[in-house]
Amino acid sequence: MHNGTPVTVLGLGLMGGALAEAFLRAGHPTTVWNRTPAKADGLVVRGVMLAPSPGAAIAASPLVVVCVSDYDAVADVLHGPLDGRVVVNLTSGTPSGARELAAEVVRRGGGYLDGGVMAVPEAVGTADAVLAYSGPRPLYDAHASTLGSLGTGLHLGDDPGLAATHEMATLVLMWSMLDGFLNGVAILGPAGVSATAYLPVAQTAIDIVAGWLPGYARQADDGVHPADDGTVDTHLTAMTQVVRESELLGVNSELPRLIRALAERAATAGHGGSGYTALVEQFRKR
Amino acid sequence: MHNGTPVTVLGLGLMGGALAEAFLRAGHPTTVWNRTPAKADGLVVRGVMLAPSPGAAIAASPLVVVCVSDYDAVADVLHGPLDGRVVVNLTSGTPSGARELAAEVVRRGGGYLDGGVMAVPEAVGTADAVLAYSGPRPLYDAHASTLGSLGTGLHLGDDPGLAATHEMATLVLMWSMLDGFLNGVAILGPAGVSATAYLPVAQTAIDIVAGWLPGYARQADDGVHPADDGTVDTHLTAMTQVVRESELLGVNSELPRLIRALAERAATAGHGGSGYTALVEQFRKR
Ligand SMILES: NC(=O)c1ccc[n+]([C@@H]2O[C@H](COP(=O)([O-])OP(=O)(O)OC[C@H]3O[C@@H](n4cnc5c(N)ncnc54)[C@H](OP(=O)(O)O)[C@@H]3O)[C@@H](O)[C@H]2O)c1
Ligand SMILES: NC(=O)c1ccc[n+]([C@@H]2O[C@H](COP(=O)([O-])OP(=O)(O)OC[C@H]3O[C@@H](n4cnc5c(N)ncnc54)[C@H](OP(=O)(O)O)[C@@H]3O)[C@@H](O)[C@H]2O)c1
Repeated sequence: MHNGTPVTVLGLGLMGGALAEAFLRAGHPTTVWNRTPAKADGLVVRGVMLAPSPGAAIAASPLVVVCVSDYDAVADVLHGPLDGRVVVNLTSGTPSGARELAAEVVRRGGGYLDGGVMAVPEAVGTADAVLAYSGPRPLYDAHASTLGSLGTGLHLGDDPGLAATHEMATLVLMWSMLDGFLNGVAILGPAGVSATAYLPVAQTAIDIVAGWLPGYARQADDGVHPADDGTVDTHLTAMTQVVRESELLGVNSELPRLIRALAERAATAGHGGSGYTALVEQFRKR
Repeated sequence: MHNGTPVTVLGLGLMGGALAEAFLRAGHPTTVWNRTPAKADGLVVRGVMLAPSPGAAIAASPLVVVCVSDYDAVADVLHGPLDGRVVVNLTSGTPSGARELAAEVVRRGGGYLDGGVMAVPEAVGTADAVLAYSGPRPLYDAHASTLGSLGTGLHLGDDPGLAATHEMATLVLMWSMLDGFLNGVAILGPAGVSATAYLPVAQTAIDIVAGWLPGYARQADDGVHPADDGTVDTHLTAMTQVVRESELLGVNSELPRLIRALAERAATAGHGGSGYTALVEQFRKR
């Protein structure tokens, strides 16, 4: 049942394999290439074409999705002419790396979209997987339906570096959340509370903060920081208490200390009576 | 329509006022006291009794909810004998402060529950407001229905310090999330992306991390850290990239640097090939 646009996937690691799988399931004639060809075995028995070289794989389809370890690997696989090809690079990298690669692909006759997969490989091919793309809007629109086989697509803007910039931002958010969660697990451990017992309380806290973000985003954009739900000074008092109690408990206090230092600087800058979003100015500074 | 257990609320600040309001709406005969009596005006016209002193307010009801600025203020309002009274203290404080206050209330003939309100005042009185309590389970069970007027109740354990310990943990999680979000806003600013435009991507990232936490909590409890979705070493590579790119962008890199330092220590401790939850050991250390 092959009825969609032909697609090529270069790279069959954890993520590339899931991408090829999703195209196959959606009925796209799918060609793959991987440095270690054996990783294609399970796909080939189900109708995927394994190309003998990256160039042959690129020649096979108008849409070429690349998902390898890093940009050095992308350079290794993106061989030969790219005339009439649209390269969708889902390999993680930097904004400047994406812009340079975009320029090179265009020089070689192709079109370029950068992207990031916001999902684990298992979720790829379902609406739960979000894929964020950047690059020329008309290119995205032309292929949005095919790319829709991978998950929910978001177009972030015409600058090909935007997907990588968003990825940096979300990585900091994700690591911050994970570290904040694990720090809490460490705080509760000596009181005999397991991480699993803490979980519903942590999830309530996450829901609450997620509910604040739309209002906070507007405040950060407007540069106006009303203190409807607590001033920086009130937060500072609680932060100092958490630093002191962490030390009494004998758990690591570095994260609460950095949290406090940033709030202290906001207060020193005249934002003691402002709301929490006033801290955005501290993050904007080197 | 007064048909429930009589309740007293000491303190009518932003939160105390919302608590009294919720009891009133649920049909509980409600008595209040506040240092600044005028804050009771809107409640009194609707049937709330304003007591002339904290002692008179305490005498009026078997259940006495206290919500003032801090524990010094609690000491100022918790006057007179407490025989047969159950004090529910929803003032934020430390675990040791809660334990000391619990002992004092018991000495004075009362019962003590500590608690934390995980909600903004506007949400109090709805199921969306979560209130986490700690203290003797039978006391909680006896008053769970009355306290249910305030929101969804969670009993965390018999140790009265547990609510404050959970509050410390969730505060670190909340500040970490907010700082992680604001740091991302700062990263995206130079690329012309507003916080509001970033919001849907940030919320996708939050949903993804929230979905990982049940598995991560089990791993932290078991002390087994499989790397199904990425090793500490892989994260470290991306962390170094984010630190470097932050510097190129001229935005603050302190949070990514701390994130990287913690992961580096986990790798040095032999967890380079483990999953992210291996970092919990770093947070457990002073
Ligand atoms: N896994 C996830 O959960 C996830 C989530 C979001 C984003 N990503 C991103 O997706 C990309 C791929 O991740 P992954 O998890 O699929 O990694 P992976 O499982 O380690 O696979 C890496 C892939 O890159 C290939 N490769 C590496 N160096 C190469 C070279 N010099 N020449 C040719 N091929 C080379 C590998 O080929 P061999 O098979 O021959 O080794 C393999 O196909 C990364 O940028 C990652 O950040 C992954
Ligand atoms: N607001 C929130 O979103 C929120 C959320 C969760 C938890 N909390 C916690 O709830 C507690 C109260 O917060 P809030 O927002 O209601 O604060 P608030 O609006 O500042 O009100 C403080 C209350 O404490 C009273 N008070 C302060 N010092 C006193 C003293 N020495 N003697 C007698 N009364 C005194 C004040 O009386 P006057 O009216 O006479 O000044 C007022 O009723 C805090 O522990 C806070 O951490 C608040």
